[in-house]
Amino acid sequence: MSHTDPPGAVPAPIDVPEAARWLAGRVVRTPVLSAPVIDRLAGARVLLKAENLQVGGSYKMRGGLFAVGRLAAAGHKGVVAQSTGNHAVAVALAARTFALAATVVLPVDAAATKVARARAAGARVVLAGTTVEERLAVARRVSDETGHPIVDAYDHPDVVAGQGSASLELIEEAERAGTPLDALVLPVGGGGGAAGACLAATGRPIEVYGVEPRGCDSLARSLAAGRPVAVTPAPTIADGLRPSCVGELPFAVLRDRLRAVVRVDDDEIAAAFRLLLLELKVLAEPSGAAGLAGALRLATDATLRSLGSGGTRRLTAAERLPAAAGARQRTIGVVLTGGNVEPELVARLTATARIEEEVAVA
Amino acid sequence: MSHTDPPGAVPAPIDVPEAARWLAGRVVRTPVLSAPVIDRLAGARVLLKAENLQVGGSYKMRGGLFAVGRLAAAGHKGVVAQSTGNHAVAVALAARTFALAATVVLPVDAAATKVARARAAGARVVLAGTTVEERLAVARRVSDETGHPIVDAYDHPDVVAGQGSASLELIEEAERAGTPLDALVLPVGGGGGAAGACLAATGRPIEVYGVEPRGCDSLARSLAAGRPVAVTPAPTIADGLRPSCVGELPFAVLRDRLRAVVRVDDDEIAAAFRLLLLELKVLAEPSGAAGLAGALRLATDATLRSLGSGGTRRLTAAERLPAAAGARQRTIGVVLTGGNVEPELVARLTATARIEEEVAVA
Repeated sequence: MSHTDPPGAVPAPIDVPEAARWLAGRVVRTPVLSAPVIDRLAGARVLLKAENLQVGGSYKMRGGLFAVGRLAAAGHKGVVAQSTGNHAVAVALAARTFALAATVVLPVDAAATKVARARAAGARVVLAGTTVEERLAVARRVSDETGHPIVDAYDHPDVVAGQGSASLELIEEAERAGTPLDALVLPVGGGGGAAGACLAATGRPIEVYGVEPRGCDSLARSLAAGRPVAVTPAPTIADGLRPSCVGELPFAVLRDRLRAVVRVDDDEIAAAFRLLLLELKVLAEPSGAAGLAGALRLATDATLRSLGSGGTRRLTAAERLPAAAGARQRTIGVVLTGGNVEPELVARLTATARIEEEVAVA
Repeated sequence: MSHTDPPGAVPAPIDVPEAARWLAGRVVRTPVLSAPVIDRLAGARVLLKAENLQVGGSYKMRGGLFAVGRLAAAGHKGVVAQSTGNHAVAVALAARTFALAATVVLPVDAAATKVARARAAGARVVLAGTTVEERLAVARRVSDETGHPIVDAYDHPDVVAGQGSASLELIEEAERAGTPLDALVLPVGGGGGAAGACLAATGRPIEVYGVEPRGCDSLARSLAAGRPVAVTPAPTIADGLRPSCVGELPFAVLRDRLRAVVRVDDDEIAAAFRLLLLELKVLAEPSGAAGLAGALRLATDATLRSLGSGGTRRLTAAERLPAAAGARQRTIGVVLTGGNVEPELVARLTATARIEEEVAVA
């Protein structure tokens, strides 16, 4: 926490460096990747932290493992979690690691691959409704019945700290490479990862941005209103970014520290997905690809139009990425948060790729 | 070269460590990846060297850059190359790096993404026939006309040494991690990468295996005959493994040092492609995935049957992976040689994936 924060702004200590130290050797230190085509599209150096290569297929493993590990150390025998998918998978795997019982609650329309992964990790899987409120009600009932604590997907200091460790690794690796980040971009579901990024960037001149799918923009609306505002999430291919409301704890961090939210549409997310797959050669889930879509919009505010996704609002001057000092090339960090995606969706998104698209950007 | 080689067995010095030193900082030091599901399937630790994340999308960049760099240093003003695609892309990019002219000859049925990438790198692209003989004839004519030397895709000591540097990095990283390789598996087109792997493994107790698609098994037939034998390549999704004949220089290395060739069919390659995409989260081209298909066959000799590709011949005892000493888990290294694949093929291969397949192996 910065010393300029009003007392009580963040209700619990969130120590990203401590989480990073604890997680070292317990999770994969994922590589930082780049591709010349993406740099050219962005007109900037784009460093992508490949957390889709993380254990469990997403950076949620970091927060899940850190939080569950602490609960195990405190003597708990089981945990309960609810999420759109990746946090549930992470908590299931973390519980197995520490030999705890786990019950995870997912929406009835969860990605089948995420349900299968949570089950394969040995968790009891409950499918309940489609909204976070429905899942939370079930999770609270299970917690009451079993006495096992709930590990919230984002309203939990250890989860925020764990997620932040991915950003901290990216920040430090960029510094070591002599290309420190000017900006850091994360997709926003409940806001835990973006809040962790803000805390990881504390003390450094890095602007942190969140990215939300159009119509799933609880954070953008909450920042405008000055308090958490729920939305009825619109349909999006980014299934991980559908929580109806940003978490209280992430919001308390983000309202003071986030520079802006960038809204992207499914066409932009799909174009970013294809760039990652065909140029970077990694599989990101659409929620993960949304971070790159937002970074490209930030960097160029027009680039993705040329890839066929016109008609989106331009950023205001206040939202735009600040110019780099002097002639130095800007460096934008993006956390590719996860890679758990349905084969059918991969097929659908790649079937529409065009060779001309590749050549145009090469 | 080992001192036990008969004099003249390898017609030119091939110094893999020298190539690795020269390439350090000039190519990406690609990550070594693993996935629990793949380890479980193999019943062994499988370390995958992700050269699909290499500049140009394949490990061919290593040999191309090393060879072209030496030609540039020797004063040449241009180069000529022929290949099924990735070597052409690599030579085109390498020539641009050293400001040389480049003419590359690809088959008329080359993967469109590879043609586009060679063109985007500024090379003159000539499409000629479907066989290596047709391409070589054109390449020789261009070389005669321009005076620019041919950089052969595998019959060239610098190319073999450069390709070998990927294996050397994998071998050394596995040693540093305390899990030295028992076996090292590479797909075989012209044999340059497998020959480089054999040379990289010199002096270490590592068995090196080659993998060929069924019906594109020039190396297997050549080893049986004791001399290079051409085949009429059968159709395969592994477009990079279709050269009709193993190179003379690779053959001279492989006949003495390779333990065996594993033949795989397209179903096995497709299953390995899906494992890499959906579990490891990286896009390998089928030619690259063939290495994992071969490794899985080697490790279990039956595993892939359960993924729906029955009916393939079992390995002979002489071909099988040796048992690990004591109770130690075996470690198998695989070089994922490239990731340049048509979007349409990605769509086709993922459309057939089944969630049950994922669950079955999880």
